[in-house]
Amino acid sequence: MIRTYTIEKKSTGKTDIFDITVELEQHLKASQIETGQVVAFVPGSTAGLTTIEFEGGVINDLRQAIERLLPRNIHYDHDARWGDGNGYSHVRAAMMGPSLYIPVIDGQMTLGTWQQVVLCDFDNRPRTRRVIVQITGE
Amino acid sequence: MIRTYTIEKKSTGKTDIFDITVELEQHLKASQIETGQVVAFVPGSTAGLTTIEFEGGVINDLRQAIERLLPRNIHYDHDARWGDGNGYSHVRAAMMGPSLYIPVIDGQMTLGTWQQVVLCDFDNRPRTRRVIVQITGE
Amino acid sequence: MIRTYTIEKKSTGKTDIFDITVELEQHLKASQIETGQVVAFVPGSTAGLTTIEFEGGVINDLRQAIERLLPRNIHYDHDARWGDGNGYSHVRAAMMGPSLYIPVIDGQMTLGTWQQVVLCDFDNRPRTRRVIVQITGE
Repeated sequence: MIRTYTIEKKSTGKTDIFDITVELEQHLKASQIETGQVVAFVPGSTAGLTTIEFEGGVINDLRQAIERLLPRNIHYDHDARWGDGNGYSHVRAAMMGPSLYIPVIDGQMTLGTWQQVVLCDFDNRPRTRRVIVQITGE
Repeated sequence: MIRTYTIEKKSTGKTDIFDITVELEQHLKASQIETGQVVAFVPGSTAGLTTIEFEGGVINDLRQAIERLLPRNIHYDHDARWGDGNGYSHVRAAMMGPSLYIPVIDGQMTLGTWQQVVLCDFDNRPRTRRVIVQITGE
Repeated sequence: MIRTYTIEKKSTGKTDIFDITVELEQHLKASQIETGQVVAFVPGSTAGLTTIEFEGGVINDLRQAIERLLPRNIHYDHDARWGDGNGYSHVRAAMMGPSLYIPVIDGQMTLGTWQQVVLCDFDNRPRTRRVIVQITGE
């Protein structure tokens, strides 16, 4: 059985990081799947998915690490060619990756206690983001 | 239903980045699967998969970011021991990851308009690379 | 058919990197699945999964790259707020990601010859880690 859902988030263009765990849990409950997997995917080339402890300090730390490694204010060929100013967003998204898989046992995702699923929007302008959620199993 | 396909690319050893989206679309169409998932995996420890806007500027930007973060010309223990000269390739591949998952709805991958699936070959010599594609669904 | 297994590893808090390929192969054999996928997921927000050649030199290189990019001894807001001292662990785990997918053909994972599946424990204290393994297919 495959169930497909969509989660929507409105971002501000300032590296918003959204906790989508509760929405995933609600869709899993609705699917009535007991054994299987939740898979999440973000369409678009300027956003990514990962898991992290959704705590303000760690979220700041992640943002600062990404800014340090893949800075906004250096030269990007993309910006020189297209003038979008979001070359940094594309590179960040490609490094993080768009997809995530979480096993389901006894109707629950096997996340750790302090582990949340997050959508990271790296674009430089407000977006309405969709995350595609597929729940597969028995 | 599970369908398995292979995509082959000949690389040059110079951090080639290949757009494999059209091949994935062709295999998806051949599978006649309407709802499910495309999963891609690259065998080998010196290549990775991700999604990005396949535009020359962004591709340069990604290559330069990877070179800046995981430089080719620093010391690698792997090279000291084995003399392959591709220690940087292994570390880059491990950081990017070998697998990717894309949902399928109405017979289409749910990629964004400017989002392509890419194979990044980090090795320092020409290779014939295979990407394993599994399409699962109904 | 879906089979679920657990792999346990005892870590020391010193960025242990474990090769779990043999355990995955054993579970795959036990499942008797010939065509499908092995998916692995690590619960917890201070560990990650990837593939790499499990050779001492490369493993050192990966550890050093991670230390260089996401250093242990810089300021982390997480540590300022919670005093855990493992802010670096959280950021490293979020960048690597917790999940991995490997296709199965003819009862074998399609890993490359020198490609092993590894669990990276980034926490700063000993842990008993679980990796959830789901094998799906026919």
